[in-house]
Parts: sequence; C-alpha cells; structure tokens
Amino acid sequence: MNYEFLKKLIQPADTKIVMLIMDGLGGLPKEPGGKTELETAHTPHMDALAARSALGFSSPAGAGIAVGSGPGHLAIFGFDPIEHEIGRGALEALGVDIDLGAEDIAARGNFCKVDANGILTDRRAGRLATPEAFRLAKMLNSIAIDGVQIQVEPIKEHRFALVMRGEGLAAKISDTDPLVEGVAPRQAVALDQASEKAARLVNTYIQKARETLRFEEPANMVLLRGFDKLPVLPQYGELFKLRAASIAVNGMYKGVSRLVGMQVLPVDGVTIEDEFSTLEMFWEQFDFFYLHIKQTDTHGEDGDFDRKVKEIERVDAQIQRMLNLQPDVVLITGDHSSPAILRSHSWHPVPALLYGKYVREDGIAEFGERACARGSLGVLPATDFLPLLLANAGRVAKYGA
Amino acid sequence: MNYEFLKKLIQPADTKIVMLIMDGLGGLPKEPGGKTELETAHTPHMDALAARSALGFSSPAGAGIAVGSGPGHLAIFGFDPIEHEIGRGALEALGVDIDLGAEDIAARGNFCKVDANGILTDRRAGRLATPEAFRLAKMLNSIAIDGVQIQVEPIKEHRFALVMRGEGLAAKISDTDPLVEGVAPRQAVALDQASEKAARLVNTYIQKARETLRFEEPANMVLLRGFDKLPVLPQYGELFKLRAASIAVNGMYKGVSRLVGMQVLPVDGVTIEDEFSTLEMFWEQFDFFYLHIKQTDTHGEDGDFDRKVKEIERVDAQIQRMLNLQPDVVLITGDHSSPAILRSHSWHPVPALLYGKYVREDGIAEFGERACARGSLGVLPATDFLPLLLANAGRVAKYGA
Repeated sequence: MNYEFLKKLIQPADTKIVMLIMDGLGGLPKEPGGKTELETAHTPHMDALAARSALGFSSPAGAGIAVGSGPGHLAIFGFDPIEHEIGRGALEALGVDIDLGAEDIAARGNFCKVDANGILTDRRAGRLATPEAFRLAKMLNSIAIDGVQIQVEPIKEHRFALVMRGEGLAAKISDTDPLVEGVAPRQAVALDQASEKAARLVNTYIQKARETLRFEEPANMVLLRGFDKLPVLPQYGELFKLRAASIAVNGMYKGVSRLVGMQVLPVDGVTIEDEFSTLEMFWEQFDFFYLHIKQTDTHGEDGDFDRKVKEIERVDAQIQRMLNLQPDVVLITGDHSSPAILRSHSWHPVPALLYGKYVREDGIAEFGERACARGSLGVLPATDFLPLLLANAGRVAKYGA
Repeated sequence: MNYEFLKKLIQPADTKIVMLIMDGLGGLPKEPGGKTELETAHTPHMDALAARSALGFSSPAGAGIAVGSGPGHLAIFGFDPIEHEIGRGALEALGVDIDLGAEDIAARGNFCKVDANGILTDRRAGRLATPEAFRLAKMLNSIAIDGVQIQVEPIKEHRFALVMRGEGLAAKISDTDPLVEGVAPRQAVALDQASEKAARLVNTYIQKARETLRFEEPANMVLLRGFDKLPVLPQYGELFKLRAASIAVNGMYKGVSRLVGMQVLPVDGVTIEDEFSTLEMFWEQFDFFYLHIKQTDTHGEDGDFDRKVKEIERVDAQIQRMLNLQPDVVLITGDHSSPAILRSHSWHPVPALLYGKYVREDGIAEFGERACARGSLGVLPATDFLPLLLANAGRVAKYGA
C-alpha cells in the first residue's frame, strides 16, 4: 500500500468495516489429497457468507516468506512488513501491555542462575515459577539509576520484558545472553555511537540487578537480548480518518494494533465469544474493528489439527452475531498460515474472504483453500486488503480526472 | 511496465495489434447474485473470441483505487499512472482538441461575475449559455501580451480551457478561483521561482481580461485554476518501433493517445460503427490501433444499466469487422470499471480478453466478470498488458542468452 498516495484520496463515510483475523488460519491436509483444517471444519455460516463474497488469498510478505505475528499483522494492517520492522523486544513489551513510547528501548529478559564465579549454570533458572518471577521483578523495579527509568514486567516463567525510558537513548546494543551455559553473561556493547549511553546504562543496571538478586534462589541474575525501539508507524486516524478499534485477548496483538493508532477495547473474559461481545458493545463508537482470534494459531503450532478445526468452528458459530450488526464490509483472513502438520508458521498464502455490498460475488459457497484458489481476488499482497476495505466502504475518492 | 528495459528488447515485426477499450467496461450486478452489465449483454462474437483467448482482469492503479480517464488510459497504455500524473487543466485542454505542446501551460477557466468593487457574485455567471461563452472567448483571444500567446477555448456553459505558450514558463501557479463567492478573485502566485514569470503574465492577462469584459453581462470576469503542463511521456514510435494510431470521438481520449505518440485518426461520424470504419480504412498504414468506445462509460455513470448493456451489444456487433482484418493480437478491456449501480468510476478490476495466435487459450466461451475470474491471466496490473501485446505480436526479443 502506497499510503501517502492513498491518504490524499481518503473521504469520510458513514460505514463500518470488520477485519476478522484468525491467527494462523491457512493450513495443509494431513495426507496428500486430503482436506486442510479450514476445509475440514464445518463452517455453514462462513460458507454462506463466501457465496456472497469474493475469495482469494492474502500473501503476508511475498512468495516463500513465513512471517511472525508482528510482520504478519503489520502487513494485513496495510504496511510493508519488510520496510517496517518490529523487533522482538518491542513485541514482548507490547505483549505485556507496557505502554511503550516512541523513544523507549525494549528488550527480552530471562531470570537465570549463575555460580559464585558468575558463570551461567541455568539460562532459565529451572523455568522459574511465574509467582517467583513476579517477586523478583518487584525487587528489580526498586533499582534506581540516574537519568533513566527501567521497568521489568514478568511474562511467564523465567521470561520478562524490560523497558528503559530516558533521553538520548538508542537501541543498537548487543545481547548479554550468550545463549549457552558454562560461560559468563556478556557485557552489553553499543553497536553504534548513538547507543553508547544506553549500553553503559544497561551494564550499570545489570550489575545492580546482580547485587539485588545475589541471595535469591533459584534465579540470581538476568540476561537481556533483542534490544530495540518501536517502529514509528502512520496512524489510522490521521491517515484514513478512521476511528479504529482492536479486540484481542493477547497483549502482543493489542500492542501491534496500538502501533497503528487503533484503540484497544476491553474484553470481559478470554473466549472467542467474549471478543464478539466486545464487538457488539462498542459497535456504534468506531468505524473499523480488528478482531483477533489467537486459538487457531495456538493449535496449529501445537500440531493439533483437530483442535484447530474445532476453534475455526467456534469462530463460525459467532459469524451471525457479527452480521447482525450489519457491517458494510468484512474481511476474514489470517496474519499467516500455521498448518498443524508443520507445527509452525508457514509461507503459504492465507485464505481470504471479502464481503460487502459492492464486492463482486464469486458465487462460491465455501470458505477453504481450494475454494479460495478459484476466487476472483487471486493471491493479493496482504497490504492490498486495507485499500480494498476502504474502497468498498466508500472511503476512497477517484484518482485523477 | 519497465519501459526502459523493454525498449532494449524491441524488435521489428510485420504484425498488427488492436487495443479495444470499452470505457468503464467493468460492472456490478443490480442485485446480489445477479449478472453484471457485461454478463447480461448478449455478446455472441466476444464469447466466441473468448473461447480462443486468455481471460483475466486489468487493475488500473492497484487495489481499491478508482481512476479517472487520464490515469486509466495511461495505465492501459503501459505507463505508471501514479508516477505520471496528468493535471486537470491539461486534460481539459486536450479535451477540446487544443494541440498542447510540451512547454505549454494549461488551466481550467470559468466565466464569472464580479460587482463594481471586484467582489465575486457568481462563480459561474448563471451557468452562462454556451454561445455566449464562444462570443466572450473570441473577445479574450484578441488580447495581446508581449512574449506569450494565450488561447481560450470554450468547453460548455461557463467553462473554458486556457493555454499559455511561450518561453521559460513553468506551471506551479496558485488558483485565482477562490471557490467561494463574496470575496475578490485571487492573484495568481508563483509557488516556485521557475514559475514567477508565468504567474506575472497570468496576472497581467487577467487584468486585461477584466478590462475587455467590463461592460459584458452576465459574465464580466474570469477565474483560473489547475495550472499545469502536460506530463512528458515516452513515445510509442521511439520506445516500441510502433506506428501507433488512435480512433476516438472525444477529445480527451485523442489527447491522451497523442501524449504517448499515437497518431489521431479522423472518424467520419460519431458512432461506434463509424469508429470501426476508420479502423478498416487505415488498417494497412499502422501497426497498433487503440480504439476507444465512450458510450459504455457514459451510461455506467448515468446509472443506466440497460443502456450500458445495449452499448456493449453494439460493440459486439462490430467484432467480426475487426476480426475480418485479421489482427495478430487483440486486447479487449476498459480503462476502469463504471458499474451502473454506483453511477461512477469504481476500483473494481476490469474484465480483459487477450486474443492471438500464441496466446494460451483458456477455452472459456464467455466474456464476463465471473468468466474472467476463472481466466489464466489473473488480476494483472493494467501496465502489464502492453508488453503482453508486443510479445504476442513477435515484437519483443529474448532477454539474455
């Protein structure tokens, strides 16, 4: 999407758009000639909607590229995921709801164990219990360093996110995690001149962390890696005159949507059904809703074909609730494929369904990989869907005379 | 199209290409599940041709972008319509058959009314009668200014095109039309240093125009806006070694084809049938023919589904005349879609049919949106069709050894 070009054509409209993202939606058959997860799922509501829609595929980052959740979402949100890179540290921080500012530095952390000589004996401190991690994080958050604020937020077990906030900080800093045991944690090294101040502060912090935790068991030290800042992205409100909202249970998806200027809506609960309740509750207040379903990806990555099928069916059971709200335009797709047989994200284009009053119907009454291959959308770059949603919602003026 | 790359591969051939553009061809059904205009039309000749052709869609300027006729034509002629922008002033001038040179400045004009204090009281002078506009234009065309020629050409009612011809003129000039009444017309202001001379001459001209028209009723003044020059485009003759001709009734399409170096052929009459007669008459003298049908767009924009259907059928009745000439390669498509239900240009990709001895036939005996969705071309950028036409006409040599 050439969003600077598109921005000039944006016109206001009184229409509503839903982007329903089933994480890891695309799949593969268990056996050659068999059905994929989506094809196996009994999805009468999505099939009926497909009959009134255009079908095709979304390609997150081009042929052969499997994307993570960060780039996968940036792409379907309309932004080139190769040009706009989100580092893992920033993603983790977003994932635990840290309100990361544009100047803040984020990193991923481990609580770990070192021996009396400072040699790393367990990188994960025995996969530290989560409550223990909360206690240690609280201790670390009492450390004061001149000129910066450093905040640690536990994620799960030994993992935490670290955020450093201050002036003149840059994030080209090497990892302190050596990734192997039997050696000492590394010093943080500035990889450019601008990052020297931050690297020095990181080393000071780590020394104080070691002192603070020295009598603790089983974790008595920290490792840091993946230092970075947030990418600065254009905002939906300013670019597209959209009041955009996101509905997600997991922090990372809330975070990525916040990056492009969506307002993160509260979900009362953690189920798929709860998310659709949030959609109903806030329907009048926004023009654009991104609704994220995590479960489909989780079971794709677990390698659990049947549970992924079941989660797709659970989403299908909610489709009528969404349609009852009378959205003008709906996109159903994923941020990437996660075939259960691969137990991971994959490079396969993601099935996509585009519904709206002015969408040319393909008349194919099925939502699945083979059905989408017959659809009129073809294989579209994921970044093309946002302009399509906006156009179908009457929000893009004609270019030129 | 990377035309600098393509240019190096061009080889001569004794083949003939027809690009038949039905303006606004693509459509939408009147009701969900119904047929589009093209699907509704009884088109036995195009259907028979489709069976021996490859089908697909042309996307003028990317997903979600509805284009005007200028960018739509540049795209199907092979040039990126975002990179090569044609301003409205230049399009208007082309539209009234002004032979606009590369150095000329064009603007859109209104005859308007001001009061004794010079305050604008009617921006359109009561939608001045066209014969009146011709009389006033003649008066204005007697104005002499040192160093430049300024020509006014009436369009319709209060609207006219203005062209300024001279040395060292640039067109970054602000509008004199304030777009509201109750204020005085603005001075033209140069927006860069290169445009200062032209802006000064425009202001001198406007002052003389006011003196010339001061005793006239109801229009006694002029407003100018949309100053620009023609984009400089590569020429078909030089780029592709093509003797290219255009067959069109309306000035704008003649003008746009002239921009890329086509020779505009005379049409004896204004009907679709007359245009095909021109094709027959000049068949031996050119290698490439662009034939433009305006009527399909006109009725799309009128919202008249049935008349658009009828015009498509009228074109279909001419297909055999074209095939009797034994063209080597034929493309039938549009410059954009104009669904009657939208009463405007739209963003939908345009059905496209590519016929030729070396085209892989899809064997789909129907030319329509759903048929094209099953075609092997997929959704192609409009700019890809020209290289396809040239290759199928044996005019592109192998790249590399």
